[in-house]
Order: sequence, then C-alpha cells, then structure tokens
Amino acid sequence: MFRYKVTLSYDGTQFLGWQRQPEGRTVQSEIEKALSQILNTEITIQSSGRTDAQVHAKGQVFHFDSDKELAGEKFRYSLNRVLPKDIHIIEIKNVPTDFHARFGVKAKHYQYLVNVGEASPFFNNYRYELMRKVDIKKVLLASKDFIGRHDFRNFTSKEIDDNGFIREIYKLDISVQDDIVTFDFIGSGFMRYMVRMIVGTLLAIGIGQEEVSFVHERLLATPRQTVRYKAPGQGLYLVSVSYQEEA
Amino acid sequence: MFRYKVTLSYDGTQFLGWQRQPEGRTVQSEIEKALSQILNTEITIQSSGRTDAQVHAKGQVFHFDSDKELAGEKFRYSLNRVLPKDIHIIEIKNVPTDFHARFGVKAKHYQYLVNVGEASPFFNNYRYELMRKVDIKKVLLASKDFIGRHDFRNFTSKEIDDNGFIREIYKLDISVQDDIVTFDFIGSGFMRYMVRMIVGTLLAIGIGQEEVSFVHERLLATPRQTVRYKAPGQGLYLVSVSYQEEA
Repeated sequence: MFRYKVTLSYDGTQFLGWQRQPEGRTVQSEIEKALSQILNTEITIQSSGRTDAQVHAKGQVFHFDSDKELAGEKFRYSLNRVLPKDIHIIEIKNVPTDFHARFGVKAKHYQYLVNVGEASPFFNNYRYELMRKVDIKKVLLASKDFIGRHDFRNFTSKEIDDNGFIREIYKLDISVQDDIVTFDFIGSGFMRYMVRMIVGTLLAIGIGQEEVSFVHERLLATPRQTVRYKAPGQGLYLVSVSYQEEA
Repeated sequence: MFRYKVTLSYDGTQFLGWQRQPEGRTVQSEIEKALSQILNTEITIQSSGRTDAQVHAKGQVFHFDSDKELAGEKFRYSLNRVLPKDIHIIEIKNVPTDFHARFGVKAKHYQYLVNVGEASPFFNNYRYELMRKVDIKKVLLASKDFIGRHDFRNFTSKEIDDNGFIREIYKLDISVQDDIVTFDFIGSGFMRYMVRMIVGTLLAIGIGQEEVSFVHERLLATPRQTVRYKAPGQGLYLVSVSYQEEA
C-alpha cells in the first residue's frame, strides 16, 4: 500500500464546505469522485480538517491510500484535468504510511481579509466587505490578548471537544494596505468558527461596539458565554498546514 | 431636465452582458430597475457601448436624464444600496445636456489578462487560464502591426457597420508579471469581439499556431476573411472611457 499526501487550493464560493454530505456539492466529494474515477476503485480521503461553506484554501492537505504506485507529476496533471476548475491540486507526494493528514498536524496558518474602504464588485466572494472605518490601533491592542495558550470555549460554536478547549495561537499578525486589513493566524489548531469569531470580535472592538478589555474578559469567562460576533466565511483562507516531518 | 454621467464597475460573471434583453440578467436592466425604483419613474440609460457576457468593467460610463436635481454623493449611496453587489457605482456627476455617453466617446481603454503559468482556482472568472508557454517576443513583435489606423473587418464579428470598419488603436502595451500577461488597449473605438479576436490572434502566434506575418496579412485581406481566434470573455475588462470635455 502506498500513501499519498496531497496539497491543494480551492475557491470555496460554490461549495457547501469541505466535508462530504448526502446532498450538495462539497470539496471532499468532488475529489473522492475524481480519484475513484481515475483509480477505478472507491477512494476515501482524510483532510487536515474541515473548512466551512464559502471558506477558501490556498494550501489544504489530505492523504489517501492506493495499492498503485503513482507517478506524482503525471498523476497530478490527470487529476487536475478531471477535477472542476475551482479545485486545483498543487502537489502529490508519496509519504510513509504513518503520515496522517489530521493527527500529524503541527500548525495551521489561516488568513482573513477585510475591506474597510470603498466596495468593489469583484471581491464579494473573496473578502469581507465591511465598508466601515475601523480603529486599527484598538484592534492591534486587543489582538495581543489572543496570542498564546488560552481556553477558547467562548470563541467557537463547538459544544464539546475531546481535547478540551485549550489551543495555542503562536502568531497573530495584522497588516493594513490600501484599505485591506489582513489577519494572519498561526496556531496549534483552530476549532469551528474560531478564526471568524476572533476576527468578528476584533472588528466589533475596532468599530466601537466593544471595549478592548472585552477579549481578556471573554477568554477568562466560565461558565461559557460565547461571543455573538462571527465574520463571514468568504473572507477566510486556509493558507497552509505544517507537519512534524517538515520541522 | 438634468443629465447625469455615471461611472461604474461590475463583475460580468453573472450577467448575460450589458444590454437589456427580454430574458435573463443584464447590467443595464439591473441599473434601470434600481434607478426607476428610487426615482419612482421609468428611467432608460445610455452607455458608452455594450459589453458581452462574462466581460467585466472597472470604469464603464452611462448617462440618464431626470427632472429631479440629485445630490451626487447621497444619491450614489442610495443607488449602491439598492443595486446587487456585483455592480458598484463609482461616481455620479451632473453634466451639460449635450453630453452623450456613446456619441461623445473620445477613447476607450480595455485590458485583457492571460495566465500562462500554473492554474489557480480563484481566477477562472477573472482571466483567461491559458496554461501554455507563450513566446512573448513574437507576441510583442506581431502586436506592433495592430497599432495605428487600420481596417479591422477581419477582427470583428460585425457584418456591417455604419461607420465602416476603420478604427485607430493609439496604444497596445503588453506586460508580463508572475506569469500573467496583461494587454492594454487604448483606441478610438472597438467593434464587437475586436479586442478578444486581437488577443486570440496574438496568443495563436505566441504558441506557434500562426506566423508573426499573419497579423499584417489579415489587416490587408479583402474580401473579408475573419480570423477564427477569439479569447474568452472573462479575461476582458473595460477600464475607462474618455470624453472630449476632459481633454
């Protein structure tokens, strides 16, 4: 048996999200359909984790197994030909069978894009068109509180997690260029809606709906008191996933 | 009566083109619907010219008349709120009643984008994903022949034109950055499919389907012998329209 690690990008606009579902178009089902067709046997894939409806990926990772030895570049070419144009395979690598796309994750990089300037008709599906003035100094100040190891139970829709709600954010960089605010998150792992709820909270602070101290308060709040802010899916990109073996 | 000159951008992906049609979504009909709703009377608009299905605009221009004196910035805000998100009004200006969006055109700037590198899932609707090596030197050389005053009857689908087939291309700049080839056309006017047929022809030369001399031959060919190359609509942008009064 051979195990393959696949890196890919996709435009999330026309998908219900990553995960296969009984009805509707998902990234996982499109890829499993294409792989099963080319390899002439039913293939199931395992990703680094799901992405939600409208959310994009520049560097998602999945693995799959096959009893065939596949020629990387040639196979990649065939697969891209069969796949719809809003999914693009970047790399296919033969890896040891103990590689696991989900359990082996060391860190993930997510990016979130917000337009605080004049609207553009071209980016409705590719960033959050906030079109309000944001106090970036307040956003930057509040963002510092998220960095490090915290209990993020108030920044996820998840009701229960086998691993608990502790996660570590290694880096949260915020930059502004031409009215586009870019949030770069690097962390050990992100729970459902976590990035979008953090961005939503920081924007609420930036437009004056909440005080800077709100972040600190909610990071400590138990019992659970989930924030009601969530930035929309189309502004979010899974940029890359890193694994132990690459360290 | 007041005449208003309106500058706008739109994402052509979800439109059958500019011109109002009995069936289907067009830019003109969406704008006429919005204006008629806000001004509470039937409004007809006159553009600088049509754009085809999938073709985008960064700076299309139209005019319309109203017996109401409209406050530019406030009216623009209301109109953008009513319009769908893939249309965005950039400016509304009160102009003399002898201004005409179509007959007053001095020059138009069109841009065409081609990706000759690795495909990306994010730009299928926003450029031509050629994904073939192109000999840019040949393209540049052949492009020189288009500059100036020529009979473009072999580079349009138009069967007959009241003004004949003579047009002038003032400028045709071609630049390459990160595998994206950008064609910038500035000319007196462009007939149906003219930019796309010129780009299609230059790409045919760039990939070796035709010789560089092909352009010169077809510019002189009478009787008519239309070229069979036409780059797809999604790579084309109407960047701006200029008028006499701005000279």
